[in-house]
Amino acid sequence: MPHTILILNGPNLNLLGEREPEVYGRTTLADIASACDSRARTLGLTVDFRQSNHEGELVQWVQEARGTASGLIVNAAGYTTTSIALLDALKTFEGPIVELHLSNIFRREPFRQESYVSLAADGIICGFGASGYELALDAIARLVET
Amino acid sequence: MPHTILILNGPNLNLLGEREPEVYGRTTLADIASACDSRARTLGLTVDFRQSNHEGELVQWVQEARGTASGLIVNAAGYTTTSIALLDALKTFEGPIVELHLSNIFRREPFRQESYVSLAADGIICGFGASGYELALDAIARLVET
Amino acid sequence: MPHTILILNGPNLNLLGEREPEVYGRTTLADIASACDSRARTLGLTVDFRQSNHEGELVQWVQEARGTASGLIVNAAGYTTTSIALLDALKTFEGPIVELHLSNIFRREPFRQESYVSLAADGIICGFGASGYELALDAIARLVET
Amino acid sequence: MPHTILILNGPNLNLLGEREPEVYGRTTLADIASACDSRARTLGLTVDFRQSNHEGELVQWVQEARGTASGLIVNAAGYTTTSIALLDALKTFEGPIVELHLSNIFRREPFRQESYVSLAADGIICGFGASGYELALDAIARLVET
Amino acid sequence: MPHTILILNGPNLNLLGEREPEVYGRTTLADIASACDSRARTLGLTVDFRQSNHEGELVQWVQEARGTASGLIVNAAGYTTTSIALLDALKTFEGPIVELHLSNIFRREPFRQESYVSLAADGIICGFGASGYELALDAIARLVET
Amino acid sequence: MPHTILILNGPNLNLLGEREPEVYGRTTLADIASACDSRARTLGLTVDFRQSNHEGELVQWVQEARGTASGLIVNAAGYTTTSIALLDALKTFEGPIVELHLSNIFRREPFRQESYVSLAADGIICGFGASGYELALDAIARLVET
Amino acid sequence: MPHTILILNGPNLNLLGEREPEVYGRTTLADIASACDSRARTLGLTVDFRQSNHEGELVQWVQEARGTASGLIVNAAGYTTTSIALLDALKTFEGPIVELHLSNIFRREPFRQESYVSLAADGIICGFGASGYELALDAIARLVET
Amino acid sequence: MPHTILILNGPNLNLLGEREPEVYGRTTLADIASACDSRARTLGLTVDFRQSNHEGELVQWVQEARGTASGLIVNAAGYTTTSIALLDALKTFEGPIVELHLSNIFRREPFRQESYVSLAADGIICGFGASGYELALDAIARLVET
Amino acid sequence: MPHTILILNGPNLNLLGEREPEVYGRTTLADIASACDSRARTLGLTVDFRQSNHEGELVQWVQEARGTASGLIVNAAGYTTTSIALLDALKTFEGPIVELHLSNIFRREPFRQESYVSLAADGIICGFGASGYELALDAIARLVET
Amino acid sequence: MPHTILILNGPNLNLLGEREPEVYGRTTLADIASACDSRARTLGLTVDFRQSNHEGELVQWVQEARGTASGLIVNAAGYTTTSIALLDALKTFEGPIVELHLSNIFRREPFRQESYVSLAADGIICGFGASGYELALDAIARLVET
Amino acid sequence: MPHTILILNGPNLNLLGEREPEVYGRTTLADIASACDSRARTLGLTVDFRQSNHEGELVQWVQEARGTASGLIVNAAGYTTTSIALLDALKTFEGPIVELHLSNIFRREPFRQESYVSLAADGIICGFGASGYELALDAIARLVET
Amino acid sequence: MPHTILILNGPNLNLLGEREPEVYGRTTLADIASACDSRARTLGLTVDFRQSNHEGELVQWVQEARGTASGLIVNAAGYTTTSIALLDALKTFEGPIVELHLSNIFRREPFRQESYVSLAADGIICGFGASGYELALDAIARLVET
Repeated sequence: MPHTILILNGPNLNLLGEREPEVYGRTTLADIASACDSRARTLGLTVDFRQSNHEGELVQWVQEARGTASGLIVNAAGYTTTSIALLDALKTFEGPIVELHLSNIFRREPFRQESYVSLAADGIICGFGASGYELALDAIARLVET
Repeated sequence: MPHTILILNGPNLNLLGEREPEVYGRTTLADIASACDSRARTLGLTVDFRQSNHEGELVQWVQEARGTASGLIVNAAGYTTTSIALLDALKTFEGPIVELHLSNIFRREPFRQESYVSLAADGIICGFGASGYELALDAIARLVET
Repeated sequence: MPHTILILNGPNLNLLGEREPEVYGRTTLADIASACDSRARTLGLTVDFRQSNHEGELVQWVQEARGTASGLIVNAAGYTTTSIALLDALKTFEGPIVELHLSNIFRREPFRQESYVSLAADGIICGFGASGYELALDAIARLVET
Repeated sequence: MPHTILILNGPNLNLLGEREPEVYGRTTLADIASACDSRARTLGLTVDFRQSNHEGELVQWVQEARGTASGLIVNAAGYTTTSIALLDALKTFEGPIVELHLSNIFRREPFRQESYVSLAADGIICGFGASGYELALDAIARLVET
Repeated sequence: MPHTILILNGPNLNLLGEREPEVYGRTTLADIASACDSRARTLGLTVDFRQSNHEGELVQWVQEARGTASGLIVNAAGYTTTSIALLDALKTFEGPIVELHLSNIFRREPFRQESYVSLAADGIICGFGASGYELALDAIARLVET
Repeated sequence: MPHTILILNGPNLNLLGEREPEVYGRTTLADIASACDSRARTLGLTVDFRQSNHEGELVQWVQEARGTASGLIVNAAGYTTTSIALLDALKTFEGPIVELHLSNIFRREPFRQESYVSLAADGIICGFGASGYELALDAIARLVET
Repeated sequence: MPHTILILNGPNLNLLGEREPEVYGRTTLADIASACDSRARTLGLTVDFRQSNHEGELVQWVQEARGTASGLIVNAAGYTTTSIALLDALKTFEGPIVELHLSNIFRREPFRQESYVSLAADGIICGFGASGYELALDAIARLVET
Repeated sequence: MPHTILILNGPNLNLLGEREPEVYGRTTLADIASACDSRARTLGLTVDFRQSNHEGELVQWVQEARGTASGLIVNAAGYTTTSIALLDALKTFEGPIVELHLSNIFRREPFRQESYVSLAADGIICGFGASGYELALDAIARLVET
Repeated sequence: MPHTILILNGPNLNLLGEREPEVYGRTTLADIASACDSRARTLGLTVDFRQSNHEGELVQWVQEARGTASGLIVNAAGYTTTSIALLDALKTFEGPIVELHLSNIFRREPFRQESYVSLAADGIICGFGASGYELALDAIARLVET
Repeated sequence: MPHTILILNGPNLNLLGEREPEVYGRTTLADIASACDSRARTLGLTVDFRQSNHEGELVQWVQEARGTASGLIVNAAGYTTTSIALLDALKTFEGPIVELHLSNIFRREPFRQESYVSLAADGIICGFGASGYELALDAIARLVET
Repeated sequence: MPHTILILNGPNLNLLGEREPEVYGRTTLADIASACDSRARTLGLTVDFRQSNHEGELVQWVQEARGTASGLIVNAAGYTTTSIALLDALKTFEGPIVELHLSNIFRREPFRQESYVSLAADGIICGFGASGYELALDAIARLVET
Repeated sequence: MPHTILILNGPNLNLLGEREPEVYGRTTLADIASACDSRARTLGLTVDFRQSNHEGELVQWVQEARGTASGLIVNAAGYTTTSIALLDALKTFEGPIVELHLSNIFRREPFRQESYVSLAADGIICGFGASGYELALDAIARLVET
């Protein structure tokens, strides 16, 4: 049975393609979900792709991933730098975790640069726009194998 | 058709009139909603007046306002200084945004003084208690016209 | 009629006993709830024991406790240091409030050490693991009597 | 006899309409003075509208307002964040004080964001350009009545 | 033979009941000592209750407790946030240590909030006034048993 | 010929006795001037007692004191913590300088506690209200003699 | 019976006249004690003049002054910026307290400039060398009378 | 007609040659003015050389330079690091601005090193004493030509 | 002709496989170079793989890459957080730049977390050990194509 | 024999005219070298004009200048704010030192604003682009003469 | 007569060999005292070796060393970073002072790294465990000779 | 075969004896090298004594010491507080490392006080001038033996 990778998308990512396209590009979240699907098939993985604007729901999903998913890819968006609750949930997950950002957060406002997610993540991929998701899948595929 | 103004009220504002009346006064949120309604009628506007204790719900409402509302008045209360998620949602809104606080936050605790909402707002009105809502409606009426 | 004490547990405490047992021990939240029940009976109190991963829900429960509960015990976990919304809710509660932490947060990461809950709490108990709940009940029993 | 409202304008506001119009707009201070006059008449108020580049003169005018004016509207411009002398003068005034800024100072340089005026003001209006003056008059009219 | 618990009280606690009663209450240190005695008897413990205004003497007493006492309760008062010497002494003690404060130090001046004692303590009890001593005895009784 | 002591009073001190009497007392600046006069006579000194709300004027007066006055007593009020111009002027004065504050500035807001005047003063007297002026005269009398 | 003023001198002041004379002058502590004695006689006061290198002893003396002395003059020297224990003792004293420093501490190292004593003192005299003691006696004489 | 360069000198520069000669040298401001005159003639420029101790007057002169002067040389002295009012005035000037300091401010006290003037200046010349003025004239001559 | 990608490795990376293997793994830099070679062939790219312990040499190589390479992958190691010279060189390069770190620097010492390279990089890959190089090649392959 | 002035240029200045021309202009370093040559001839000086990307080489050149050069002009570029080694070398040089920057570094990123070179320089010239070199030569010519 | 070296040991060093042996080793203070004795004999010195847990006693001993000892070796332990009283005493000592730490304090908690002793010491030896004492004696022997 | 100790000297130490002799003394580096040689012979050690102004070269030498040297003595001079590259190299060395400074860096500028070398060193010797090298050899001789 293939490994399942849970891909979590935080607040406002449902607006991708509409919101500040000069920063985030014009690809929608649905486009990304389907690109992830096909990339996952190539890698022999299944993806479970979700988005929520609720911190508590993201926490819940991470908790539920324990036992059902083999790896996590987390684009926590606005909760990246404010959610200790999410960090604590991620620390209970035993498989590999990849942190993802569409933009290079280190060239943006200072308040976007301190990430709680990083404290639980194995690796970080940021600044590659929508294709970051595929890189993250490639990365996690290797980590899941080890 | 009249412009609709979405007026968002953050956590604990549903207790207005009961909670710390020496800081916030004795007017209830229902009183304010009806004062806004009559003020809006005078200005030829419609108001959609809401309150939530959930950060994610406030984010959702801002997202939904895109296309349905012409302006936003935001009293984010406790989420003012902690919610990047709300800031990101507000930045996707194209109409004018007025930030509102009942009390003069600059004479209160330091942690109430750094506002993420300010980074997306056109203007700010604070310290005028319940009548700040009417001033905000007057202000947004002008902004919507331009 | 006995006093009711609302015991609030924040995000990820539902995983207690599984998550980082070297920090938090192996007792589950259900174990604690039942220990609280029997301790409360001894003290002539009723407990209302809840857990949520949602900041907004915790805020709501605190609001509802006004008029129904005589005291609050709050283990806000990950929201301890980030939730002004919870602080504002707690400040509307008129009975005694005890802040609780399982671990000694002052020997952990700096970001776990600034508590908004402390600004509304009467007293704080931290570092005693699961038995901290019983100490908190003892403490609040005295406070409720005065 | 109508209440007199003293409207104080700080350094460089005499250049309004010429200086950095992309930040402050093209309306001149004279335009604003006359808009204030007509708005004041509607509200049954008299305005005394002044501008000075001298910190000491602004201090003097605030002192003289004690006994002659019922309210103050203060756009202290460059002295907002540097003048404790002005703060001390404002604290001697017993009527309501409204702080005013043309631009949203919270989206500008950090050194424009710490206001001594806020420590003495009842309310703050900022970011609405020239129409902020009229909002401030509306606000102070209510405060003067109470 | 019953376990002995050394209860250390730091500078100015000998004035308890006289000094700033609005902060610390009217109970004297002698009252507390005798309450501790009877509580200890109930728990099958012996207490050795001391107070000193001298940092060096407190250090000495902690050193002497090694081998003679099974647990420490430390209300270091003014030395809480300034004494690394006391911290170093506490780190040489092998039994459980409970840190105690009469008031909720997190609602007082910032300089009372950084505790060196916390770095050596197992648990902390603060804000419950004189009854905190009894809670501390209950807590340490459990810790001594383990 | 008797030594002349220039006593400089900064912004808002002309309101003394009216402004925040709970902080500064009810004595007026004229009362103080005449108390200084009689105290000076006892000490065999002449005083030149002035007040200005203008930073530049205070600077000017210090400059003019070079050659005409033997000592300076400076209560710079609101310019204490903001005027490098005043500091630079004081540094050109060769006689003794006494810094004076009516209230104990170290128990007030932090922004009143960093004094540029201290960097040029020989000694500081603060917190003794109006009688601080007489103490300052006593102090400068000794310094002038040496 | 004349009022007694306790004059406390902190660590190393027993070396006065020998230690760093370029900073503190050549007058010894004995010289100062006798100057205080004669000044006190003029003012109708008695002085109790002491020095200690022990923080705890200084705390003890302040405690004992409650009931026996009418005022305190405190030159805490090296304990000025480190002793919360001394601050807490001073806060229990009900008569006037004058803080004293021989040198102008604001022109010395930064670590000498944050004084805990200031938080309990009525007034401060610093920078006048040995004659500061006489100024302090004059000051406290007035305060004791009120 | 030759270009006019306004050379502004801030507080205490009128004392040049007398005040702290070890820092600023013995040349007077009149010496510098005449050196500037002859240097300007060589460069085909006219200079308007002024000094004021009043922040407001410096602001005023900058405002008046708009339309009458082709370039500004500003030695703001004590107002360099405190005057946002001066910065705002300078930003309204459209010609080139050269900031000037006699001493190397980066080897002096930290509070002399943050310059608001720098935020509006094209270039900065500091540390060359009186000859800095001539260098500044040479520099501005080139800038005016472009 | 295939695109050339310059892969730069900073100080101490020549020891890879020997130095702190618990942090960096046991793969040598030669292993990585050959893995890059084969991955590059798959992607239709050529790689130029270099290591230097000299900041100046790395700067030089970046300068030379202008015109000869289509993309840069930079693992600056110890120069990441200290070299503005490297940042300035990178800013002159017009093709895409990928920043690379073997370990998750955000879980290491604070001084490893401020990267100057990030200010010039398009994207960042960190924490994936040796396989990060291959991910970086995949990422840059896409960027070079756009 | 004419005085020799060593002009040192730090990392990336060899790219001048190509790199970020909107910040640094289009003049090349060779252009500047020849402008310096002719300016030097006018002043009766010889120039030794060099550039290096290596911190150590710049240090070496400063060391060698001792005895051979009469003055130094240093544009340390990226090493300005990071090289204590360069500062230490400059402090061994006994002739005058002029610090030079092409752009006004005080209007750029904060990390470009703390200069170690300033701590050893006599004077600073910044923001005048390529013509700053000629101003620096004029300045050093005067300093060498004294 | 041989020079006497006073070796001062601060709080908790009497527990050496028992307390945290993984940090400080198993040698006792008595072992060190006798090693110092024999080393001193070789060097022609006498040692006076003491330990105290009392800050005031350490201050006293330093004062008494004036005139009786030729050099000081100070391991102030917990008072290193908190005792200005000790610093002031050390500054009155005219012979050489060597600061000593058993462990490398720069690899421990930040609060152990700011030393007041360093401000009075000639040299510092730290991290060599018990043998640091002998190195310190060697070092001071040379300093005493000069 | 005797143990080899590599003694590394950083930038500008080649100028020892000439550069700032009031800080560093008049002994040259050659004097020190020969003193080290004779001291090493006494201790049965060989020394390899080097100096470089190049950070990269120092890194290289540390790398090469792995396998050839038994211990390192590092006086990194100007690279002490700026070179993470050097720190990373030192961490790969398995023998003992002694950090050395000629002067007491804790009495100099703050920027000389944060040492990266300390994070890899076993012990530190500073402030003893040239004789510190011999102390360091004595110290490392003991460490090499263990």
